[in-house]
Amino acid sequence: MSGPLVVVGGDAAGLSAASEARRRDPSRPVVVLERSAHVSYSACGLPYWLGGVVPRREDLVAVPAEELRLRRGIDLRTGCEALWVDPAARRVGTAAGEVAYDALVIATGARPVPPPVPGLDTPGVHQLRSMDSAIALDAALRDRPGGRVLLVGSGPVGLEMAHNLCRRGFDVHLVEAAERLVPGFPADLAARVAAALGEGCVTARTRLALAGLAPEGEGVAVTLRPREGADLAEVYDLVVLGTGVAPRVELAAGAGCALGAGGAVRVDRRGRTTVPGVWAAGDCATSWHRVSGREVWMPTATVATRAGRVAARDACRVGGRAPALLPGVLGSWVTEAFGLGFGATGLDLPAAHEAGFAAEAITRTGRDRSGYMPGVEEVTVRLVHDGPTGRLLGWQAVGGCDVSSRLHALAIAVAAGMSVDDLAGVDLAYAPPLSALRDPLELAAAAVIGDAA
Amino acid sequence: MSGPLVVVGGDAAGLSAASEARRRDPSRPVVVLERSAHVSYSACGLPYWLGGVVPRREDLVAVPAEELRLRRGIDLRTGCEALWVDPAARRVGTAAGEVAYDALVIATGARPVPPPVPGLDTPGVHQLRSMDSAIALDAALRDRPGGRVLLVGSGPVGLEMAHNLCRRGFDVHLVEAAERLVPGFPADLAARVAAALGEGCVTARTRLALAGLAPEGEGVAVTLRPREGADLAEVYDLVVLGTGVAPRVELAAGAGCALGAGGAVRVDRRGRTTVPGVWAAGDCATSWHRVSGREVWMPTATVATRAGRVAARDACRVGGRAPALLPGVLGSWVTEAFGLGFGATGLDLPAAHEAGFAAEAITRTGRDRSGYMPGVEEVTVRLVHDGPTGRLLGWQAVGGCDVSSRLHALAIAVAAGMSVDDLAGVDLAYAPPLSALRDPLELAAAAVIGDAA
Repeated sequence: MSGPLVVVGGDAAGLSAASEARRRDPSRPVVVLERSAHVSYSACGLPYWLGGVVPRREDLVAVPAEELRLRRGIDLRTGCEALWVDPAARRVGTAAGEVAYDALVIATGARPVPPPVPGLDTPGVHQLRSMDSAIALDAALRDRPGGRVLLVGSGPVGLEMAHNLCRRGFDVHLVEAAERLVPGFPADLAARVAAALGEGCVTARTRLALAGLAPEGEGVAVTLRPREGADLAEVYDLVVLGTGVAPRVELAAGAGCALGAGGAVRVDRRGRTTVPGVWAAGDCATSWHRVSGREVWMPTATVATRAGRVAARDACRVGGRAPALLPGVLGSWVTEAFGLGFGATGLDLPAAHEAGFAAEAITRTGRDRSGYMPGVEEVTVRLVHDGPTGRLLGWQAVGGCDVSSRLHALAIAVAAGMSVDDLAGVDLAYAPPLSALRDPLELAAAAVIGDAA
Repeated sequence: MSGPLVVVGGDAAGLSAASEARRRDPSRPVVVLERSAHVSYSACGLPYWLGGVVPRREDLVAVPAEELRLRRGIDLRTGCEALWVDPAARRVGTAAGEVAYDALVIATGARPVPPPVPGLDTPGVHQLRSMDSAIALDAALRDRPGGRVLLVGSGPVGLEMAHNLCRRGFDVHLVEAAERLVPGFPADLAARVAAALGEGCVTARTRLALAGLAPEGEGVAVTLRPREGADLAEVYDLVVLGTGVAPRVELAAGAGCALGAGGAVRVDRRGRTTVPGVWAAGDCATSWHRVSGREVWMPTATVATRAGRVAARDACRVGGRAPALLPGVLGSWVTEAFGLGFGATGLDLPAAHEAGFAAEAITRTGRDRSGYMPGVEEVTVRLVHDGPTGRLLGWQAVGGCDVSSRLHALAIAVAAGMSVDDLAGVDLAYAPPLSALRDPLELAAAAVIGDAA
């Protein structure tokens, strides 16, 4: 009989850790402390529920709480916030009392970071991260059908929200403080996203920062600051802030865990923090980048679930073939807005230079299927490689909706340490309705080595 | 000034060789001899033209003959069949006279192989391979709108034809002599294809071989032979034979070129035949398999265009970074029928055993996007790996239409020599409308190493 594993956080990393521990070590009690009422839901799916694409909120729940309790045997305590950790005594404090642990997995996730402006508490100003915040936003949207909504920030989630609020019939406006939409995405690819947004009837403006919020009647008075010239005063029914997230580390920091990249909880390749008996996983924890070899903070749901399993296996001292070490991340992401799929994997050109590579980039546009087939779409691929060795370092891509499984191919090529020369010679499957005789992936690699038509 | 490069065959391999020679060595004259009137068309697109998906035959032409002649400077002679080669004198014979060459690239392609039955010349019996055969079939279809059509053989092209003839309103029947549809495809995956065919209102029967053809009125009397019991006599308006292809090697064999796997013209990694001054490329030539290392005959359009370029570079003695050696093939193929995409790459389990691997296979079904998103489809992946080392050897997959770019990922993983352990740890991009939190590719690899949920 092993001592209890206590997990703080009931989302991707926390529940995958808890479930893995129950699978691997059924004799060990597992307690999950979740401060909200909601567990095991897809946070990535919230924009689609808000847009009406997913009809019921319950559809987003991967495993219902009752199944976690009864079938997986997890002692799941919702509405129960972990307030402190005493690592010497191996106890977690909650408002309902103390919980003893043998091993502790901290999976407290990330929180949205609003811009530093006055009036963030103005009614009608929302952020989207958790189920609770989505429920609040949904109620506000119901109160103002067809209203004017301002989205602040044009990262992937901001663009998904723009699309979904359009679907629901709102008059959607978007502002981005940076030079262009999708900050960090290469200019040539971001231009395609901007064009799709325009066709999708979102008014999008760049180089325009949020400077203030205040109540005005039933709505929100918004002050927007252009890079040059005078502030703009506009009024919206609702404002949704999508200006980034930060790791939620107070509990771990209070327990004495060292912090690392991005201010996240520093973990080693087994998910161990610097405090004995304490692991961390998911959006609150660091990772290491497979290409640069550096510590990074790149929170994604896919990495979180994997990290949860690895931490649980280490905490339970499980052997076997399943990986004992975190494999590192590529920062792969993808999203879809207005019929366009776009995403990235590995290092972009600035990151590759910063990591010390003599990196070069090439952009090529090809087709997702034969040019004569109906529905053919252009896929633009930007390939980043190490000039001297040809090693693939990263990719960004924009195209039709199946760009995401193309991004799988790119991630695998980068993870495998393939060179552009290798990639250009891979025998990719071709059929006119499904792929091109020379896929955009091959075209980009072939262009680097001078094997292009 | 270099001597002329003569290419026999004006399709994928031949024209890619001719174009590459012109690009790399503009001083060298290039002559292409094509026996038909048609060059540079997509043979893979013919079923879609016949089905009306591609409106005009001309849409299938990648580069018009006039552009090949005027802009690429290729001396393209259509309706000009190469009848013999004298490799000592370096001359090719045609009905219009002899053509001298310095280097000869044979790209004569493949021909359909009908089953050995009486009555193959019965009016109403067709085969599909070339533009000429498609034009003849189209004329016959126009004469019998809505008629009863029998397709013999259920390989990828047979299934594409079934779908396209349904689109055009024909009453489509299909027979397959083998145990199940899509011979060579694993039973569990073939079952999904069979189900889709049924929903697509094609009557498909297996274990039923064509035994004879004869005229009957305006139609064709067909004798079908079950594995047990008496022959069946049926009448159709049209019969389309799709029972495989064989390399067209008479010209090369007559020149003294050795033949290899599948009876194809044996070439080395530079595309050279065993006869000095003679190269071969495309569907008439052998390849070597990247996984088994063996000589194979695996004709595909993607391999043909690449082989044409390599042969031309070698024949023209071009240096530079573009590959001088054929990279080997994986036999990757994919097709779509009735909304289902399916294909394979690398070795299947029997081929892996035959190649000496202690191979194992695992099949897993996952989803192409989050389960709560509309349009979610199941993707079934069968992964073949080497048991002792975990090396990926091949895959087969069936799923929605974006299965093809997933097959790109699979081909890259196999070509890179990745192990299942490596693959299970790759950070794949996830967004609810585009991919699953754990992609079917990852699920299959994770199942092998015991990292499955």
